[in-house]
Amino acid sequence: MKPVISIIMGSTSDWKVMEKAAIQLNEFRIPFEIHALSAHRTPQEVEEFARNAEPRGIKVIIAGAGMAAHLCGVIAAMTTIPVIGVPISASLDGMDSLLAIVQMPPGIPVATVAINGSQNAAILAAQMIATGDPRLASIIALFKENLKQKIVSANEDLKEYKFDYRVI
Amino acid sequence: MKPVISIIMGSTSDWKVMEKAAIQLNEFRIPFEIHALSAHRTPQEVEEFARNAEPRGIKVIIAGAGMAAHLCGVIAAMTTIPVIGVPISASLDGMDSLLAIVQMPPGIPVATVAINGSQNAAILAAQMIATGDPRLASIIALFKENLKQKIVSANEDLKEYKFDYRVI
Amino acid sequence: MKPVISIIMGSTSDWKVMEKAAIQLNEFRIPFEIHALSAHRTPQEVEEFARNAEPRGIKVIIAGAGMAAHLCGVIAAMTTIPVIGVPISASLDGMDSLLAIVQMPPGIPVATVAINGSQNAAILAAQMIATGDPRLASIIALFKENLKQKIVSANEDLKEYKFDYRVI
Amino acid sequence: MKPVISIIMGSTSDWKVMEKAAIQLNEFRIPFEIHALSAHRTPQEVEEFARNAEPRGIKVIIAGAGMAAHLCGVIAAMTTIPVIGVPISASLDGMDSLLAIVQMPPGIPVATVAINGSQNAAILAAQMIATGDPRLASIIALFKENLKQKIVSANEDLKEYKFDYRVI
Amino acid sequence: MKPVISIIMGSTSDWKVMEKAAIQLNEFRIPFEIHALSAHRTPQEVEEFARNAEPRGIKVIIAGAGMAAHLCGVIAAMTTIPVIGVPISASLDGMDSLLAIVQMPPGIPVATVAINGSQNAAILAAQMIATGDPRLASIIALFKENLKQKIVSANEDLKEYKFDYRVI
Amino acid sequence: MKPVISIIMGSTSDWKVMEKAAIQLNEFRIPFEIHALSAHRTPQEVEEFARNAEPRGIKVIIAGAGMAAHLCGVIAAMTTIPVIGVPISASLDGMDSLLAIVQMPPGIPVATVAINGSQNAAILAAQMIATGDPRLASIIALFKENLKQKIVSANEDLKEYKFDYRVI
Amino acid sequence: MKPVISIIMGSTSDWKVMEKAAIQLNEFRIPFEIHALSAHRTPQEVEEFARNAEPRGIKVIIAGAGMAAHLCGVIAAMTTIPVIGVPISASLDGMDSLLAIVQMPPGIPVATVAINGSQNAAILAAQMIATGDPRLASIIALFKENLKQKIVSANEDLKEYKFDYRVI
Amino acid sequence: MKPVISIIMGSTSDWKVMEKAAIQLNEFRIPFEIHALSAHRTPQEVEEFARNAEPRGIKVIIAGAGMAAHLCGVIAAMTTIPVIGVPISASLDGMDSLLAIVQMPPGIPVATVAINGSQNAAILAAQMIATGDPRLASIIALFKENLKQKIVSANEDLKEYKFDYRVI
Repeated sequence: MKPVISIIMGSTSDWKVMEKAAIQLNEFRIPFEIHALSAHRTPQEVEEFARNAEPRGIKVIIAGAGMAAHLCGVIAAMTTIPVIGVPISASLDGMDSLLAIVQMPPGIPVATVAINGSQNAAILAAQMIATGDPRLASIIALFKENLKQKIVSANEDLKEYKFDYRVI
Repeated sequence: MKPVISIIMGSTSDWKVMEKAAIQLNEFRIPFEIHALSAHRTPQEVEEFARNAEPRGIKVIIAGAGMAAHLCGVIAAMTTIPVIGVPISASLDGMDSLLAIVQMPPGIPVATVAINGSQNAAILAAQMIATGDPRLASIIALFKENLKQKIVSANEDLKEYKFDYRVI
Repeated sequence: MKPVISIIMGSTSDWKVMEKAAIQLNEFRIPFEIHALSAHRTPQEVEEFARNAEPRGIKVIIAGAGMAAHLCGVIAAMTTIPVIGVPISASLDGMDSLLAIVQMPPGIPVATVAINGSQNAAILAAQMIATGDPRLASIIALFKENLKQKIVSANEDLKEYKFDYRVI
Repeated sequence: MKPVISIIMGSTSDWKVMEKAAIQLNEFRIPFEIHALSAHRTPQEVEEFARNAEPRGIKVIIAGAGMAAHLCGVIAAMTTIPVIGVPISASLDGMDSLLAIVQMPPGIPVATVAINGSQNAAILAAQMIATGDPRLASIIALFKENLKQKIVSANEDLKEYKFDYRVI
Repeated sequence: MKPVISIIMGSTSDWKVMEKAAIQLNEFRIPFEIHALSAHRTPQEVEEFARNAEPRGIKVIIAGAGMAAHLCGVIAAMTTIPVIGVPISASLDGMDSLLAIVQMPPGIPVATVAINGSQNAAILAAQMIATGDPRLASIIALFKENLKQKIVSANEDLKEYKFDYRVI
Repeated sequence: MKPVISIIMGSTSDWKVMEKAAIQLNEFRIPFEIHALSAHRTPQEVEEFARNAEPRGIKVIIAGAGMAAHLCGVIAAMTTIPVIGVPISASLDGMDSLLAIVQMPPGIPVATVAINGSQNAAILAAQMIATGDPRLASIIALFKENLKQKIVSANEDLKEYKFDYRVI
Repeated sequence: MKPVISIIMGSTSDWKVMEKAAIQLNEFRIPFEIHALSAHRTPQEVEEFARNAEPRGIKVIIAGAGMAAHLCGVIAAMTTIPVIGVPISASLDGMDSLLAIVQMPPGIPVATVAINGSQNAAILAAQMIATGDPRLASIIALFKENLKQKIVSANEDLKEYKFDYRVI
Repeated sequence: MKPVISIIMGSTSDWKVMEKAAIQLNEFRIPFEIHALSAHRTPQEVEEFARNAEPRGIKVIIAGAGMAAHLCGVIAAMTTIPVIGVPISASLDGMDSLLAIVQMPPGIPVATVAINGSQNAAILAAQMIATGDPRLASIIALFKENLKQKIVSANEDLKEYKFDYRVI
């Protein structure tokens, strides 16, 4: 199946963070591809990637980068499909990366998620595609329902636990 | 025409920031609606709003809020359509609002844009819908081309200007 | 005995921080209950929890959460009993959580304590209830006296220690 | 009527921020008193104030201070009634004051509200007293209902407004 | 005379900050050119600018940008001549811009100066060129000597001033 | 009378902040001198100043500077008398200056006061000299007593004020 | 010999940081004493300590504390001798403690050193006393000379080292 | 061969960070020297170093320092050759060092690179020298090409990897 989402990161060392996006997309059964290209070290390859993404059928790009994270904004500048930015905490707890991704100037937005929040990037990408795909919308609804069930069960388990405390 | 994007803000005092989203959507000819509801003062109305948005045909929600900005996350928790968050600088230069919007836990993303970046929120919303609407995709491409032309012209104008400087 | 304080956290993984609140309440012999519910993943359960707390006899809620910590504010929005917020350091040293809890807009306060300060949340909850319970007020006074004694003793012990240093 | 809440600030120049607490308490018909005493310039007077507050019938103290804001913590150290801290933005946008108030060590909590959030301090104080005063609890419930009505009305007004936008 | 330094900024609105660089280069009698091109809105023009700078005889580029300031890093990625970055304070007091410029990944440096420090960017550019131009080196030495003289004179003036104070 | 305290600032534009130090020293009747010398633009003059301060009879140096404020540390490196640093808020609300002054490495301390806190620098300088001057010690004690009296009076005045509020 | 400097910390757990002050004072042969008293848990003992320090012959107080570090300011409020504050990094990398110590209001200075900079606190205390003690002044001058020698030697050692690098 | 670049750091403990600059210069075959001198502990040696650098044939200085990092600015004040500053993260994640290096006042720039970014400092130094040395310019161009090749290969390798994910 042709990929509709593209995951790109500034360096293969970012894979330990970005892997959760891949796992989540897999769970949603959304075909995707993975790239590691640096906005600063391979600007031409990034440009080629960005300009060809939409013609190749990509509908959303998830881009993760650390430090002065330009990858997301640079890609957003060269495509009209939505770009989701994942700030990666390589220094300063990720504050540098967050600001370098989220504070885009008027005209070129990047949809930013939490520091190291690549799983949420995948969910957001799915939500974007689901605006035109009712079947995917129901998969996401089911996913959210499961999230809830896990927590409701955990809360039930706590009832035993807390009793021990209250005794003494 | 039925609105497909909903702009919501925590208070009518946020309108001076959020208005740019409305102007931009108007420019794109995308029908939208506007609400002012507080996650903290009108939680039931917010819930009702969030749960009914998708059934009413809304495809993307743009939510702006300041300080401990919970509105975006609270809405994201109750819908499966994408939510775009606009941090508003009511205190601490907007850093509190930015962190309260972007740092969402795994499972419930909010697509965050720059502090006071409501115009970009509108562009991002348009890009999301355009993933399934080729006509809108070309409108966005045209918009980006115009952005570029304005800057290219401004750059041309600079050529006169700088000459004066170099003379002496 | 029916609980009068409710401890709630966004995830069972927050228990390692919130446990100190439980231990302290136990020491004060104040009956309490424990819940783990997420503002974002289980919004309905949180609402049900918040709306029923006061009718069930709960007098104070202690809520702990990390990152874009909405749990405390969301609960505060749906009850009239006081809510104490405990910021948990899951990222950015807890600064995101602190700001997302303390910077509440006019109308809906959350009584915020230090990052990871769940023991203080329990003491504060006890102080609130003690405003109408003289017996509990004396227990708290005794607790403070004990705090002091431990430090006064530690200070006495230092006297030996420092002598060694001054000799050479 | 004897005051049950005491508002104290580090300097009379803080009154422009703290006045909102007084206005709110007035609205709730809760008798209160006002002091301006500095933890650093009048430590004895502050001590006397703190030690006598509870014997004089004060049930909650609201303390506002800026910069290295010690007033709240110093008072909390000398009383067993709850102390609410209001960080005042005299420098660094109030971040210094916020941290100096909220980051209290284990044993001595201060219930901290938003920077300059004195109205919320008053509401929180009322909520604390209402844990033992059902009549006050209904006044607070009514207040929250009014907050909601104002926003619901404002939201209705927006409906006219937004229509103009959608036309073109 | 052919320009050897190129000043580029993300938007003509940055001119009020960048003008000081032009004034300083003028004072040094170094020929320069001025551009306003956005990394995000005119990526192709920026690339063309960056790739042609060195062939056109430019020896140093001074680039100023605000917010998520990618312009400097994007240019540095496409040239081998040194790029000096000037963070411009368009939001968050310029902290976002500073981090987005200075925190470049290994391989692609940007020589960053103070927030809004465009005059220093010009001096630094002159120093770089002076590494191979002894005449320019003496002009810079003279400039520094003048800086010193102004301060030494001001210090002399203070001597009168302070006496008045000490009298009473 | 020969000066025993030296006030030095990085630029005459810092005088509006540093003047309060002069006024306070005048009030204490401590003879002082004033200099404006830049660590970066007049390094030799600063060195000469620092090395001669103690031989000339100066007992304490008060140094104020903004931005990357090196003046205080540079002077401290070249003298054995105590140096008090006053961070001046020229950018980033003074946070850059505060960190550049207070975070000195082991071996060379600078006694740092609040951002723009030049009055406190003067009081601290007086306290240092008073460790060997009982007459000055009593002047300082008197000064502190006066501080207290002003606040105690202001607090008395509040009593009228607050009554108006409680009436309605 | 009677102590002339008093080291005080908020908790015995701060000793691992404050020990370097003791070691340094020992090296200077300045008699000192050590206390651990909490501004919040033992306010009366702290007051007694602060009020008696000067009458007991203490000339300088070194106070270390973490989090909302009130100890230094509280002591400074109750004595006229100089107080040196050492911010201890118990949370937020020590930023909370730094701001809570250094940002004192006009009238009551605390001489603040670097985060965890207790050795510098000892050197500063010695410098203060040396303003009236020429013998101690020469000990400090000797100490600074030794500091320099260690670095000059280390620099010599580097000369071998770097040669290896340049070969290939 | 006579060194043309000088690496200097505040303490030999900074070598673990600064070593990457040496390795990079070695790779470029640029002769360099290494020093460890402290602006605060050996001010005279630093001055001698700074004043003699250019006469000795040094063309660029790379200076690394942590905390209140004055070394870079102090050297820049005493030479007319360009100074590159490397902030070292000894405390506060390096934020104190970054601000103390980059926020230089008008007149005396320091070319600042990323926190711990000593490899980039070496590349930047090479770029500066290459403005007058075409052979070095081609070495740098080759280096950048290699950077690119490594990433392009890594990207190719990812193609296998991602396939496994898409299967299930």
